This record gives sequence, C-alpha cells and structure tokens, in this order.
Amino acid sequence: MEKDQQTPGDKPADPPVQSVLHEVRTAENSAAHLLPKLQSMKESNPNLKLLDVGSGSGTISVSFAKLIPDGHVIGIDVNPKILPRAQAVAEMAGVKNIEFQQGSVYELPFADETFDVTFCHQVLVHIGNPWDALREMLRVTKRGGVVAAREGDYETECVWPEVPELRRFHKLVADIMSAGGGSPTAGRQLVSWALKAGAERSQITLSYSSWSYNTPSERNICAQGLCGPLRGGSLRERALKFGLGAEDDFEVMAKAWEEWAITEDASLAMVHGEILVQKLP
Amino acid sequence: MEKDQQTPGDKPADPPVQSVLHEVRTAENSAAHLLPKLQSMKESNPNLKLLDVGSGSGTISVSFAKLIPDGHVIGIDVNPKILPRAQAVAEMAGVKNIEFQQGSVYELPFADETFDVTFCHQVLVHIGNPWDALREMLRVTKRGGVVAAREGDYETECVWPEVPELRRFHKLVADIMSAGGGSPTAGRQLVSWALKAGAERSQITLSYSSWSYNTPSERNICAQGLCGPLRGGSLRERALKFGLGAEDDFEVMAKAWEEWAITEDASLAMVHGEILVQKLP
Repeated sequence: MEKDQQTPGDKPADPPVQSVLHEVRTAENSAAHLLPKLQSMKESNPNLKLLDVGSGSGTISVSFAKLIPDGHVIGIDVNPKILPRAQAVAEMAGVKNIEFQQGSVYELPFADETFDVTFCHQVLVHIGNPWDALREMLRVTKRGGVVAAREGDYETECVWPEVPELRRFHKLVADIMSAGGGSPTAGRQLVSWALKAGAERSQITLSYSSWSYNTPSERNICAQGLCGPLRGGSLRERALKFGLGAEDDFEVMAKAWEEWAITEDASLAMVHGEILVQKLP
Repeated sequence: MEKDQQTPGDKPADPPVQSVLHEVRTAENSAAHLLPKLQSMKESNPNLKLLDVGSGSGTISVSFAKLIPDGHVIGIDVNPKILPRAQAVAEMAGVKNIEFQQGSVYELPFADETFDVTFCHQVLVHIGNPWDALREMLRVTKRGGVVAAREGDYETECVWPEVPELRRFHKLVADIMSAGGGSPTAGRQLVSWALKAGAERSQITLSYSSWSYNTPSERNICAQGLCGPLRGGSLRERALKFGLGAEDDFEVMAKAWEEWAITEDASLAMVHGEILVQKLP
C-alpha cells in the first residue's frame, strides 16, 4: 500500500472527506472543551491572540473571533485553495478581527510565544507525525497559554442500521486515512502524542465527547457531505490513488448513504478525544 | 453457545460487570439528556412521580430524588439482593422521598399511567426484548409524561494503550452480553426499539454522549471495578457458565487492567445512546 506519510515541509494531503460536513462546525460544537478556559483567559486579557490550525473553510475560526471581539484570530491552512472560502465565511458573518493564511502545522510561520491559544480540530487525525505538530503548536504559544486539540476516533464510529455498504464505506475511509499517514484512532492517542511533543502529563487535561447525526436534516447534511466526495471528490480520488476500494462500489455506497438519510431510525455517532495542554508560565 | 435470552417474566441475569463502577453514577452524569425536561416538568408540577427502572445500588435514583424534593422516586430492580444497598445509599444521602422495590422491567407492578417520568440506564443493553421493556415503561407513564433511556454502545469502546489482553477482555464482555441475550450495540438501536415498542418517530428525541475514565482516580475506579468481577464475581461466573474465555486468562486480564490504571497516557471512552420518548397527552 502506498504511503504518503508526511514529513515536515511536505504538503499534507486533503482529508478524505471535504464537504458541507465541515461548515456546520463552530467553536460551540467543536471546541466546547476549550470554551470555559477561553472565557477565563478573556476576563483577564480581552486582547487574546488565537491561532486556529487547519482552519479549512473557517467556520470554527469565525465563531472564535465572535467570542473574543477585542482579540484577534488567525486561521491557517495548508491548502491555499480553501482560503477564499474562509474569507467569504468571515465576511458573511461580519467578522473583522480575523485573517486567514496558508501554512503547514509542521512549520508554523510565527515567532515563538505568539499566541495565547493555539487550537486544531480534525488535523492531527490526518497527519503522520502529530507529535511534531503539537510541539510546533506549543512553540508558538505564549508561556501560560494553552494548546487545544479535538480529534475524532474514527474506529468508534457507530452507524445504524447495520448495512454492509456502510460497513465497507467505514473500512474504506479508515484505509484511506491510514494510507495517507493518518490515524483512525487519533482521539484516544492525544495524550500520548502530547507527551511525545514534550508536555508533562500534569499539563494535559483529557476529555471525550461525541459527535452525531440524528435528525432528518442532520442525516441529510451527512449523506450529502459523504456522497459528493464518493461520487467525484477527494475521497474517490484518494481511494483510486491508493488502490483502495472497487470503483463500481463508490456509487453503491453513495446510494446506501442516501437510503440511510431517509431511514427513520438511522443515526451515526463517534467519540472525539479532546486535550488542553497548559503551557507552563 | 448457550443463550439465556429473556422472555417476559424471566429473571434477567445480572449484568456481566457489577461493581463500584455503578456507584459513581448520578442523574447529572448518567441522565443529562433528561434533566432540562425534568426541570421544566417540575416547574409546572413539583410533585412529579419518577420511576427508575433497574435502579441497582440507587445512586442515580437518589440524585433524582434530590432534584425533585417535592416529588417521589421509586427505584425498582429485578435483583432483590441489591435493594438493601440502595436503601443504605438513600439513608446516607438523607433522602426521604424515595423507595426501592423488587420487580421486572417486563412486568412493572404499577397501574397504567402512574409516573410522570420513567427512566432506565444500562438496562436495555442487557435484556433480550428491549422493545417489550420500553412498551411496559410507556404503559406505566402518564399521558404527557416522558420515558427516558440511556444505554452504552459497547462496540464503540476505545481503550488506550492498545494491549492484547484488554482487547480480549473487550471481546469477552461483548460475548457474555450477547450470550445473555443482550446487545453490545444497544446505544445505536434505541430509536428502532422505541419504534418497535409503539412510539412514533416524532415522539422520540435521540442524542449521544460519551462516558470515559481518564484521570488517575477514574482509571483506578475503572480497574477496581473490572478486576473484582474478573477475579471472583459475576463476570467470571458468567464467562464460565457460557463457556467463554479461558479461566487462566482472567487473572492475566485483571493484571492488564491494573497496569493500565497506572499508565500515564491511558484512557477509556465509549458512546452512549440516549432517548426521550414523549408520551402523547
């Protein structure tokens, strides 16, 4: 199996699923473990500087910017093609205290100790050396600041009803993640990665939360978000690149997701791991 | 493989893991999806009647009783041996508006439309006909009242580090659950069971949450709670009864949990499914 394990300086591949699924994300639903800390930091310093690593289409970054109106947010993404979308999202929200730029989590283009808060969501799950990414995030964080990460644990995904096509889809995505150097069990590994990045266990707070698609509208968003990449997007491209999955099967799997979306008792849920790493003063 | 699939009137077998793990449960950590609804119901009727089905050692029932001080809680459990412990838990908490009694979820000893709220936690996961249990819970619930359930989805359990002995333990517990007529994927099936019990989809609200053991003290509770039943309790007994697992391996698995408890990056998490079923007025 081909490996595109990233090394520092490489351009990480796009995640296997790039879609509308990303734009439902906000700080409230994707960084809840950070928000109490962010609130208490804001009370002592309203001018917080926050870095959102792997900001994608920027919906999380923009909601952070709203939470710290006297602060400043930088969203950074390795993929320059996504930056105009992020800028449009910020403009539509009327948010001014934000900017987006291109860059790799392995070589953040910032001086040491620049940010009060450095955050990433669904980034470490996709890359080969997540501990190097966390070390770099710690580097650009001020002493007394905090690094926060939230990453899915794809192997915990549970889908109902149990349908063979959806099981094959699950395996396909896990195989693409692994072939791309990522970790389908990222969520559970965050503490071990933070330790490897140089943090002490006493600096790290771990929690878990779940993400799910339950209601008809949520299921519709989920199915849309998966069918697009299956039928002609990054997921199909990467599957073919890595020699994973039978091409004829992609349409079968997409149809199974469409059926799932209109099934009255259908749902999908997954565990996410979350860490806060308090940088020592 | 022997099956002790329950039929209405049978005495359900004890869950495979009975231990200190159960006594950390409260309404706050095990019924969070119900609490906003309970609060709004209490505002219009402080004298709520709440039934906690499968109340075990009563810690959840007692915290419900504290939340509705002008209401009344009945905890019911199929296992009469656990009732003195539940009564002691209530006495230690100084809670008076509560009583415990013996009974099966398949044949609740109450008239139709007795309770405002009927709740169960980690009950349906262990029994063979969970839809019959939900139908019975709906029967004893008043029109306009609510049935609430929260059940683990054991197949989503994620444990770090990855240790072969802990993987064997996971499989052993799943096999015991299945052999006993339960469902290791209960969490994801709650809506389908409620539909089978006669509810309409529009009456059902589904959510998911996670349960985890992360900190040293949580890991210690978890390991204690698993090692006891492995070394001489219900888990060992049921494994032997069903011809599952090698007896020599129980001590090996217990030692692996003890090692896990003192491993600095260790954790365990699992998805739980949660439903509220609003009974029509």
